[in-house]
Amino acid sequence: MHPTARSIDLRVHGDRLIAEIGALAQIGATTAGGVSRPAYSDDDLAARAVVRDMMRAAGLDVRVDAAGNSFGARPGSGGDLPPLVIGSHTDSVPDGGRYDGALGVLAAIEVARLLHEHNLMLRHPLEVVDFQNEEGGLIGSKIVADRFSAEALSLVATSGYTIAEGIRRLGGDPERLGEARRQPGSVAAYVELHIEQGRVLERAGIEVGVVEGIVGIHYWEVTFDGVASHAGTTPMADRHDALLAAARFVDAVHAVVIARSGRHVGTVGRLAVFPGGANVIPGRVVLTLELRDLDVGTIDALFHDVDAEGKRIARETGTAYAARPTLTSDPSPTDASVRRAIADAADAAGLRSHSMPSGAGHDAQNMAALGPAGMIFVPSVNGISHSPVERTEDRDVVNGANVLLGTLLRLDEALS
Amino acid sequence: MHPTARSIDLRVHGDRLIAEIGALAQIGATTAGGVSRPAYSDDDLAARAVVRDMMRAAGLDVRVDAAGNSFGARPGSGGDLPPLVIGSHTDSVPDGGRYDGALGVLAAIEVARLLHEHNLMLRHPLEVVDFQNEEGGLIGSKIVADRFSAEALSLVATSGYTIAEGIRRLGGDPERLGEARRQPGSVAAYVELHIEQGRVLERAGIEVGVVEGIVGIHYWEVTFDGVASHAGTTPMADRHDALLAAARFVDAVHAVVIARSGRHVGTVGRLAVFPGGANVIPGRVVLTLELRDLDVGTIDALFHDVDAEGKRIARETGTAYAARPTLTSDPSPTDASVRRAIADAADAAGLRSHSMPSGAGHDAQNMAALGPAGMIFVPSVNGISHSPVERTEDRDVVNGANVLLGTLLRLDEALS
Repeated sequence: MHPTARSIDLRVHGDRLIAEIGALAQIGATTAGGVSRPAYSDDDLAARAVVRDMMRAAGLDVRVDAAGNSFGARPGSGGDLPPLVIGSHTDSVPDGGRYDGALGVLAAIEVARLLHEHNLMLRHPLEVVDFQNEEGGLIGSKIVADRFSAEALSLVATSGYTIAEGIRRLGGDPERLGEARRQPGSVAAYVELHIEQGRVLERAGIEVGVVEGIVGIHYWEVTFDGVASHAGTTPMADRHDALLAAARFVDAVHAVVIARSGRHVGTVGRLAVFPGGANVIPGRVVLTLELRDLDVGTIDALFHDVDAEGKRIARETGTAYAARPTLTSDPSPTDASVRRAIADAADAAGLRSHSMPSGAGHDAQNMAALGPAGMIFVPSVNGISHSPVERTEDRDVVNGANVLLGTLLRLDEALS
Repeated sequence: MHPTARSIDLRVHGDRLIAEIGALAQIGATTAGGVSRPAYSDDDLAARAVVRDMMRAAGLDVRVDAAGNSFGARPGSGGDLPPLVIGSHTDSVPDGGRYDGALGVLAAIEVARLLHEHNLMLRHPLEVVDFQNEEGGLIGSKIVADRFSAEALSLVATSGYTIAEGIRRLGGDPERLGEARRQPGSVAAYVELHIEQGRVLERAGIEVGVVEGIVGIHYWEVTFDGVASHAGTTPMADRHDALLAAARFVDAVHAVVIARSGRHVGTVGRLAVFPGGANVIPGRVVLTLELRDLDVGTIDALFHDVDAEGKRIARETGTAYAARPTLTSDPSPTDASVRRAIADAADAAGLRSHSMPSGAGHDAQNMAALGPAGMIFVPSVNGISHSPVERTEDRDVVNGANVLLGTLLRLDEALS
């Protein structure tokens, strides 16, 4: 009989993993020290080819699905059991960092390679995945989870290619996306290691975040319409200043959000003023409102209050207010058994862990539609991500990979 | 002996003037019913050529000065007396209206033509002027008044031509601008008829505005620097949101301005958010602040209060605030004798007049450096200008031209 993975004290090769993170960061490297690998760009394609070579070297059976996601598979000993899936993505935002996504893919390859090197077979088949275009809207995992609408194929990604063109560039086939879909229940579990992208772990001095769930995100486009007029000849009392109204609204959003206790957040990140001349009273302002929480009820309640403020401000300023919902992504709780396996694995490795929401969206929220899903967070230095100075300490990289390994082994034993 | 102009009851030909305003509006006409004749554009050049033809038909001696301004001159009977100058400009903002500027030039030509037709000679020489590029910064009159800096020659105007190229296109010579300059004291008086561009006259039911002075305008570029970060992973308490700070500042500008009684105005017309992603907390906001009043002391006092608010808001929001003065145009009072002549002329024509500041800049503020200057305002329907729907009622057009005529005749008698 084979030795089981848990019966020997398996640990990832930290130096090797860190070196590989550095090596992958050479593809699309920016002068500022970050990486720029927007989905479907030449550098995105090049990085994924390297990832597939690494998968092969780790003994995995490599394929690209119709959606353009890269998978590396390893058989299991348990007959017809569904696969355990681990991974993340290797595309980046423009001028981003080297850890966001890449950490989860390279740590998953390290885990698979370790099993290969020790000739250890899990009960479940294992798949390592590198999802395509995570940064542009979780496209690869959306297709796999059947949450992708074909109309979006014509949208232009940051790289300048449409999603359809991008899928072809990656080796997929936008006309056969159905072949990439997987059925609910067809995945034993999905586990993703990722950098936190916030400061919660760093502030608390905790090594491992056990993600409770991925917050829901609701977006609105908010418009204030006033009357554009000459800044010199229009007395203050005669103005219908759309920017004054929008300014009060931005402050009101903040006030409504902080008035309620909890971990929800609300942001106005984009705001455009028309016509935008220094000597013209603004006639129109268009801004984005974003509300995030693990609980849709909280998002609804926040919006109810923000919306009332918008209407009140419009009355006070003689402007017209409208809020139009644009994008909605509902909260996605993680699975209790996966959370427990992560906490146990951290504990066994002598690491402190902490239950927390993910404020950012991740492929795990789509994979949760197919089976139990969970995420492991490791600290981000100063909470910075999507930036060339994005950084996670080497020890945290290694901790994360070991917790991923431990979680996988625990789930392999526990799950049917 | 000649009859004097005042000895016969001279009135402008209203129908002719209104028809000519309509005819000039065909050049650069927009589908929305306005005109688009940005300085130095083909349509700007074409309109000025028509204006010079009209000047010639009115018996004026036409020349283009080195700055590209068009002048039409008529001799006086009084020996060495300096000229009376009347006029305005015929360039427009993009997608502007047919009255802003053109009214003052065409009414001045009508006045000169009337003198020509009646064979009446004033004591002073008369000049009708069509200044170049008023909308882009009073360029033509600045050069005449020696307030133009040669560095600005390379600035690109709205039409896409540099000011130097534009001057050449108009028939001037940017290397000989000194020849266009006129000395202080070399102008007996300058009178400009213009639409109000506000609603003060319309609201008060007054036909004629006697401009007390042109307000000073001070501009600042205001910056708030915070920290751009991920909208999902940065708790509210950890944010340094530059847009929240800027929003409070916009509201504070309004509060400071309305807290003080007077006719001053304050405007934030332009505001840009960086990086400007819907899911990124704004790290930087740059906005324009504009304060206008007839009294520099009031502008200074307002800025003192606004600046204190900016600093307070920066402390409260954990951001950095900076206000950098950019452009300054000091208040320019009009001349008492010109104001009196305007009020008397209105009175003699049976029109109510009202003393008021000009909230907008005009060529008259530069001409005030060369001699007594004044402005006549006529009502703007709904106070709208710089728009295709800019309108002044026909009766107000004719009233304005008659007051311009009456003012000119009074000044010709009164001034040495």
